[in-house]
Amino acid sequence: MRIAILGGTGDIGQGLVLRWGFDTSHELLVGSRDPEKARTKAEEYETELDSRGVETSIKGFENAMAADRADVVVLAVPAYHVVGTIEAIEDRLDSETILVTPAVGMKRDEDGFHYNRPGAGSVAALADEAKPDDVPLVGAFHNLPAGGLADLDEELEWDTLVFGDDEDAKSIVVDLTAGIEGIRPLDVGGLANAPEVEAVTPLLINVAMQNKGLHDLGVKFQ
Amino acid sequence: MRIAILGGTGDIGQGLVLRWGFDTSHELLVGSRDPEKARTKAEEYETELDSRGVETSIKGFENAMAADRADVVVLAVPAYHVVGTIEAIEDRLDSETILVTPAVGMKRDEDGFHYNRPGAGSVAALADEAKPDDVPLVGAFHNLPAGGLADLDEELEWDTLVFGDDEDAKSIVVDLTAGIEGIRPLDVGGLANAPEVEAVTPLLINVAMQNKGLHDLGVKFQ
Repeated sequence: MRIAILGGTGDIGQGLVLRWGFDTSHELLVGSRDPEKARTKAEEYETELDSRGVETSIKGFENAMAADRADVVVLAVPAYHVVGTIEAIEDRLDSETILVTPAVGMKRDEDGFHYNRPGAGSVAALADEAKPDDVPLVGAFHNLPAGGLADLDEELEWDTLVFGDDEDAKSIVVDLTAGIEGIRPLDVGGLANAPEVEAVTPLLINVAMQNKGLHDLGVKFQ
Repeated sequence: MRIAILGGTGDIGQGLVLRWGFDTSHELLVGSRDPEKARTKAEEYETELDSRGVETSIKGFENAMAADRADVVVLAVPAYHVVGTIEAIEDRLDSETILVTPAVGMKRDEDGFHYNRPGAGSVAALADEAKPDDVPLVGAFHNLPAGGLADLDEELEWDTLVFGDDEDAKSIVVDLTAGIEGIRPLDVGGLANAPEVEAVTPLLINVAMQNKGLHDLGVKFQ
């Protein structure tokens, strides 16, 4: 499958590219608003994987070009860029392209991080309003720590919650997720269940901030 | 230490009484609006623990009587009874009594369970407004599944998140929690961080509903 990771030059995007590159044979496209940056990062990922004996061909493109070529488009951008990114790529999407949102809106005050719930109900609901009607949307990868995900020396043991109203699209994203060693995808129903999933991310940061020895926290349901 | 578990006749209250009874030597008081029910349940818990070779003396009382005798009062009642329960016991509380809230407000629709965030910001904030000013309030035990907690045959491996603005009171609740085998208390800061903690409970129910083989789910941060 061809997966475009928009915002694939940093944070959670980088981890997804490296893990899919390491554990699967999916074709990976790194997207960025800056195509030069996308190409540079794609080369870096190839080099990193090559150093571990994994031969890949990762290409970098401007976001819309990456989306155009992909079966699955992951919006690994900050919450406040989600709508703008969708607007920039919507001509390249159709009912055969699955949009995936891992974005979480947060705000910080003196007590820690808080879920900044958008008026639409969730960041996923914002994305749902912004995208063309016939393009399926799935939520996933919200609660994975970027650092641990991108560190291929780290053995993972985390769950990720997957939601969406299109069962076929959700099932494809569940399969893509299960391809990453140590990440267990768990179905959490439809788009209406997004807020509780997105709200876990600030909680993880608060727990890591308050407890010595805990960092790069993910979550396991058991 | 003397711990009163109000609403100790059912749900999460039952599990806390049995686990503290099994794993610690704290003095346990079961509270209920109906003192007869409290006494009957207290006897049941004693019998259950006795059958496992643990001798305890668990007493049942009407809520206010239980609170009067306790150093720590756990409000193991549904969210919509939290304020009423505090009003019924407030004469018996003072600055030496720690109030603990595990309550979560939820609503259900066709998609699943959702966090029903009170106007005050959280159920804990509601409790904070209702209690006497000098009584410290701590949040804990929100995300523990009642069934697994109450089943002494089950080995636990769960975290519980503890929050509150009074550091001394929080530290006492952390210690009480650590006394239960297999429950790791994690500090998650002050009362302002309550909503994200309370919102995890409907998420756990949704995950259990959507994934075969998963039930009685708790959470582990790792």
